[in-house]
Amino acid sequence: MFSLDSALAHVRAHKDYVLQELIDFAAIPSISTLPEHKPDMGRAAEYVAKVLKSMGMNKVAIMPTDGHPVVYGEWLNAPDKPTVLVYGHYDVQPVDPLDEWHSNPFEPTVRGDNLYARGASDMKGQDIAFLAAIASSLQHGGGLNANVKILIEGEEEIGSPNLAKFLATHKDLLKCDFSLNADSGILRPDLPAIIYGLRGLAYFELWVRGPEHDLHSGAFGGIVHNPAQVLCELIAGMHDADGRVTLPGYYDKVRVLTDEERADFARIPYDEARALQEAGNPPMHYGEKGYTNVERTGARPTLEINGLYSGFIGEGSKTVLPCKAMAKISMRLVPDQDPEEVESQLREYLTRNAPPTVTWDLKAFGKGPGVLTLRDSIGSKAAAKALETVFGVPPVFRREGGSVPVVSQIKEILGVDSVIMGFGLPDDNLHAPNEKFYLPNFYRGIESYIHFFANL
Amino acid sequence: MFSLDSALAHVRAHKDYVLQELIDFAAIPSISTLPEHKPDMGRAAEYVAKVLKSMGMNKVAIMPTDGHPVVYGEWLNAPDKPTVLVYGHYDVQPVDPLDEWHSNPFEPTVRGDNLYARGASDMKGQDIAFLAAIASSLQHGGGLNANVKILIEGEEEIGSPNLAKFLATHKDLLKCDFSLNADSGILRPDLPAIIYGLRGLAYFELWVRGPEHDLHSGAFGGIVHNPAQVLCELIAGMHDADGRVTLPGYYDKVRVLTDEERADFARIPYDEARALQEAGNPPMHYGEKGYTNVERTGARPTLEINGLYSGFIGEGSKTVLPCKAMAKISMRLVPDQDPEEVESQLREYLTRNAPPTVTWDLKAFGKGPGVLTLRDSIGSKAAAKALETVFGVPPVFRREGGSVPVVSQIKEILGVDSVIMGFGLPDDNLHAPNEKFYLPNFYRGIESYIHFFANL
Repeated sequence: MFSLDSALAHVRAHKDYVLQELIDFAAIPSISTLPEHKPDMGRAAEYVAKVLKSMGMNKVAIMPTDGHPVVYGEWLNAPDKPTVLVYGHYDVQPVDPLDEWHSNPFEPTVRGDNLYARGASDMKGQDIAFLAAIASSLQHGGGLNANVKILIEGEEEIGSPNLAKFLATHKDLLKCDFSLNADSGILRPDLPAIIYGLRGLAYFELWVRGPEHDLHSGAFGGIVHNPAQVLCELIAGMHDADGRVTLPGYYDKVRVLTDEERADFARIPYDEARALQEAGNPPMHYGEKGYTNVERTGARPTLEINGLYSGFIGEGSKTVLPCKAMAKISMRLVPDQDPEEVESQLREYLTRNAPPTVTWDLKAFGKGPGVLTLRDSIGSKAAAKALETVFGVPPVFRREGGSVPVVSQIKEILGVDSVIMGFGLPDDNLHAPNEKFYLPNFYRGIESYIHFFANL
Repeated sequence: MFSLDSALAHVRAHKDYVLQELIDFAAIPSISTLPEHKPDMGRAAEYVAKVLKSMGMNKVAIMPTDGHPVVYGEWLNAPDKPTVLVYGHYDVQPVDPLDEWHSNPFEPTVRGDNLYARGASDMKGQDIAFLAAIASSLQHGGGLNANVKILIEGEEEIGSPNLAKFLATHKDLLKCDFSLNADSGILRPDLPAIIYGLRGLAYFELWVRGPEHDLHSGAFGGIVHNPAQVLCELIAGMHDADGRVTLPGYYDKVRVLTDEERADFARIPYDEARALQEAGNPPMHYGEKGYTNVERTGARPTLEINGLYSGFIGEGSKTVLPCKAMAKISMRLVPDQDPEEVESQLREYLTRNAPPTVTWDLKAFGKGPGVLTLRDSIGSKAAAKALETVFGVPPVFRREGGSVPVVSQIKEILGVDSVIMGFGLPDDNLHAPNEKFYLPNFYRGIESYIHFFANL
């Protein structure tokens, strides 16, 4: 028989052990985007497999893909209970600029209440939290109130390029009632959250080209349309004075917020000063007219310039009229925008607005739609109850601005929703120097996952 | 007694020698803007001094400035004749993008009728042309019909930041009747030209800054004003739909073209197809409404974007909301625009138009006003006669789009006009990959300078 108390007692008595497990995991520089770290990717996969084996899984396998392998484990000894596909990733972001780190990103260091390391929050800390919860339940709580299939991939930080194919070719193996995704966070250390919406992504590289080669700006300035100027004009036209995106039809399919949803958004605690601080202290906030900041990141689509390049960018001056100019442009999408349609809208905008003095071409990168999941599924209810038990307050239901393509891929390919419950904090420095994980919530996270499975 | 025929005969018999002199000079990577090329700057100055000494100058010196040195030589043995200050520069532009060069920029290579090398046309080829003319006249023609003071600086490509001070502190040394400036070109290989107008230059680096560090575009896209977007909006607003610059007061001091000048402009041969080819085949021309292309580059001011940089510009995608964005912006100025006033106009534009969600700062680089010189001076007449003799057709009098700040500095500080006579061609790829010099005009140039001095 499952004993919640025994499972909880065990993890409370062995905090040092699970912290050491996280430290050992975070010490492996598993940077998926850098070829020179391929051996480290192998070591990280082996480490996850070792942990899974030690937990008493029925089956553990490192499964190849066209890129980095997926680590899979399953425990299916709860015949009448739901089956949960638990998702995590063992890869991390690059660490540059390295000189801004206060301690080595791969020598995990505890300072105060935080563990500093690349991947501490995104998402090795979250991986170890749910693994420790399942391990304790299985080995010291007498079992689990659910069957679990654990899938930990190695390519999330590069856009999960091989995951859709993996899901499609292992549909039977991965058959489940819903998925648990721990790759998320909460707004304040004392306020748990369940993410029920994520924005999608459409990412593009736009080139504007004029003459075949760079020109002398004295000889040709005034008679050759400068591609850098044209690029700026095209980008400037992509937003109107109200901060709305002007691509034709861009908002046509955007699901309108209901009064109930807006009321929910309004209940989410929001501290303007703190929000500015988390945003790196820009002079002031900005955004689409008619919406609150919480709505703007949670429920409204955006168009961002991620990069600009043209001509001479070194020290000093060079009087060149550049022959070409480039922008990286991405859009965060919300239900029910279709990434393919958004690409057509961008192409239509460029066709309408690019002057005949230049040519342009557009390359599309990773694309995925936004998702909204059911807030009253058995998974969501089990999660909400678990979080309220551990934190003492009910969780807020939130939509998040980021994109987790796997959530939409699991919905589309396996046909199931995800319960998105993680414990990162807004100031964890994800993808930035001095990434950290707040350890009190590492332990609360473990207990929350124990309760979550017990509640099923 | 001076013998024109002997001087001409000598250079005709020693073409290989002067070409080799140019090749050796162009092989020195004297890129003034890059600190790592400082030793090469020293080598280039030594090379010039060596050539001057071999010519039989009375005096040769490498004279320090706060930046790269000036090389000076003088021959003053023609007591009743005018004194000409001959101006050149031994520095060159950077070479990036290097992969677009068909041969190494510092391994000068003859292909067909052209010599390919960085600096071949701008202006080591022109330097060697006037030096060879003076050398041949002195050593094989028996003298010169003028006194010459030769000043070859090393900072033209970075805006001659120390030249004004050098001219001011050596006013007596540099006292002259007029200056000969070879840093220019002609429109067609068979049509010589004298430049009587040059545009000025004002060059700036603009930074727009938002948050203190780069942000995750999912978490913050929609509530933080993207500095790259703001930069594009600011740049887009700098031109109106008629191609006019919108900086407040920008055209207030622009000298209006007279009917006579417009008639002169109309007489300059202009072939649209050829002009497009020289401009690197952009889809079509562009420019300020109400003016011809010759007027646009000769007599109208412009504003160009020379470089753009923000965020992630590597391969692939990175969902960053950049904390800052940069543009290199320069303006070609015409009489009577004042570069200082133009800087104020740009600052005023930014103050009026930059949103309160960002901050900006502006750094000014080299600045100089546009100039118009006398078309009927003794120097101009000697030049016109020399060009007609060598090319068989009279030269056109032109205004040029480029900037040669030294011409206005010499006018202002030494009080003399410049005769601007050079032999570059519009398709010489100045400041761009595959710079070249058309060798038949290298030799015609030498003969033209021999005739020019003979005509004085």
